[in-house]
Amino acid sequence: MMLETTIAAIGPLDEPAMAAARDLQARLTKPAGSLGALEELSVRLAGLAGACPPPLPEPAAVAIFAGDHGVHAQGVTPWPQEVTAQMIANFLAGGAVVNAFARQAGASVTVVDVGVATPLPVDPDATDDPAVGPRLVAANVRRGTRDMTVTAALTRDEARAALETGIRIAGDLVDAGAGILLTGDMGIGNTTPSAALIAALTGTDPAEATGRGTGVDDETYRRKVGVVRTALDRHRPDPADPLGVLAAVGGLEHAALAGLILGAAARRVPVLLDGVIAASAALVAAALAPDAVGAMVAGHRSTEPGATVALRHLGLDPLIDLGLRLGEGTGALLALPVVTGAVRVLHEVATFDSAGVSEK
Amino acid sequence: MMLETTIAAIGPLDEPAMAAARDLQARLTKPAGSLGALEELSVRLAGLAGACPPPLPEPAAVAIFAGDHGVHAQGVTPWPQEVTAQMIANFLAGGAVVNAFARQAGASVTVVDVGVATPLPVDPDATDDPAVGPRLVAANVRRGTRDMTVTAALTRDEARAALETGIRIAGDLVDAGAGILLTGDMGIGNTTPSAALIAALTGTDPAEATGRGTGVDDETYRRKVGVVRTALDRHRPDPADPLGVLAAVGGLEHAALAGLILGAAARRVPVLLDGVIAASAALVAAALAPDAVGAMVAGHRSTEPGATVALRHLGLDPLIDLGLRLGEGTGALLALPVVTGAVRVLHEVATFDSAGVSEK
Repeated sequence: MMLETTIAAIGPLDEPAMAAARDLQARLTKPAGSLGALEELSVRLAGLAGACPPPLPEPAAVAIFAGDHGVHAQGVTPWPQEVTAQMIANFLAGGAVVNAFARQAGASVTVVDVGVATPLPVDPDATDDPAVGPRLVAANVRRGTRDMTVTAALTRDEARAALETGIRIAGDLVDAGAGILLTGDMGIGNTTPSAALIAALTGTDPAEATGRGTGVDDETYRRKVGVVRTALDRHRPDPADPLGVLAAVGGLEHAALAGLILGAAARRVPVLLDGVIAASAALVAAALAPDAVGAMVAGHRSTEPGATVALRHLGLDPLIDLGLRLGEGTGALLALPVVTGAVRVLHEVATFDSAGVSEK
Repeated sequence: MMLETTIAAIGPLDEPAMAAARDLQARLTKPAGSLGALEELSVRLAGLAGACPPPLPEPAAVAIFAGDHGVHAQGVTPWPQEVTAQMIANFLAGGAVVNAFARQAGASVTVVDVGVATPLPVDPDATDDPAVGPRLVAANVRRGTRDMTVTAALTRDEARAALETGIRIAGDLVDAGAGILLTGDMGIGNTTPSAALIAALTGTDPAEATGRGTGVDDETYRRKVGVVRTALDRHRPDPADPLGVLAAVGGLEHAALAGLILGAAARRVPVLLDGVIAASAALVAAALAPDAVGAMVAGHRSTEPGATVALRHLGLDPLIDLGLRLGEGTGALLALPVVTGAVRVLHEVATFDSAGVSEK
């Protein structure tokens, strides 16, 4: 029932708060419109909070959902599957790029094992104090998905369990005070289910939704497109049944991320999307609850073509476009100061009247 | 002589440090190239510092140079000239967008009156403690430039005095510990001399180098393009004589910003460029000392078309592209966390070897 009650709690943006934010933007000491995309972003966040100014989006919390993929067996990536678990150890030791960016941004990092296939080279209890660094949450639904070219990646119950894990994590982080959630992911091979989700939910051809992930060669890329096409041909997932699409061709971290987004939207807290994994999960969330788009902020434009397909479908423009394709939440973290700055303007900038500045 | 000794101190990027940074990037726990533009940025900053990793670019210091423009009399903007002085008061009171962004980024703000025409509604001595907020430096070369459609905007001596003010401010900020300088500007009408500088130094037609500034209407825009064309036709400035170009069609804040850039380059400290005013000043700096480009980082892509013309001429790609056209240093401040993040990766991210992560 958690999924249904969460979806029921998601509503539209608050129009009076948005109108108040537009009015305030026009009175601040700057030429009208001169803050570009930040102005409309501040208006949306006012609408999400139902208040003008909306609260500053802090502290920030990154949730990295990790899972493995049966489709790895089809040779869609040159990286060995155990790198997923190794990178979790790296996250918990603070040695990954996401950790460096999170420290800089003052964001907490929570790593959630929602579907890692190989044993984690860490003791979950050893890192359970968020004050001392990244936290690991053990919530493994199954040890990796099944190979979607052979059978459905997940049962509907497994997909729902992962979704509800994401909802639960969102609630825990907001309860702990987070003012914005950032999506992170780790899963060797996970751009393949992302491409399949994006193709299925937007009606885009697999060749346009599939990218080179960590940088695969031409032969692997052709195989990857073929794998996505085979899986979609086999399952013919119905975009009107998002849980069915997730089960057929998704991943456990994709499902959990969709849950995180829904959970944030239900709490009316913004969720800053990272790259293509997040964008594919956002499509699932929007298919389950269209108003959830109001809580989404697109952090960056991944080089993965599917990310751009998905963001266009959602009507979202990314804040940063620097050729990143790392994942982990790194692109969302780079965009965080832009989001905070957009809101801070509404809190701190003087009006023409109060500052004694002449208008044109 | 300060200008000549500064130019003589500017040298090329250090190749061994850049090679070391490229090598380190390849060993960090992330797919090769997955940090996109941040990787090459980190390499350039290593080359500037002559060390790998280069120092973190902190603390950051924004220098806002303010000046007025005789060409204001030609009706190139609807804003009254006294807004320049009023906005200085707003900066010193902490009420402008640049202040909000600087507080967020932990950057200091120094306001330099290098050529304001109207009396400043502030006591310069009252705000002389950098610990308590923005600082005002009184360095007025003259009370606004002359109207460039009638005569040269500045004498060569005036242009040089403003350039050397910028060099001196750069030196003072670096001496005080700044790890990166950010360009800021204030000057009603100052996109007009920017357009003239960009047209003169890149050989671009005034219609392509001129934009709508704070958002002028069609009639004012046509007049503005005509003003730039008239000034260039009258003076026919020689791009091989950058000081002559500055004197003919520049502004005092443009000259001082060119000096700030040269001063930063001479001290091998990065300088983060804001919008079109900074881009036009960067063209002057690069014309005086081509190696100064190595110290420049383009913060954002202003909506002013001249900014893109200038950055292309300099070979710089901006980090942020959000439709901003505010100036003050706001676009540079939004980009600062990207620069810091690019360098932080070299300091803090584990290598495959040290983290025990398998390579493909």
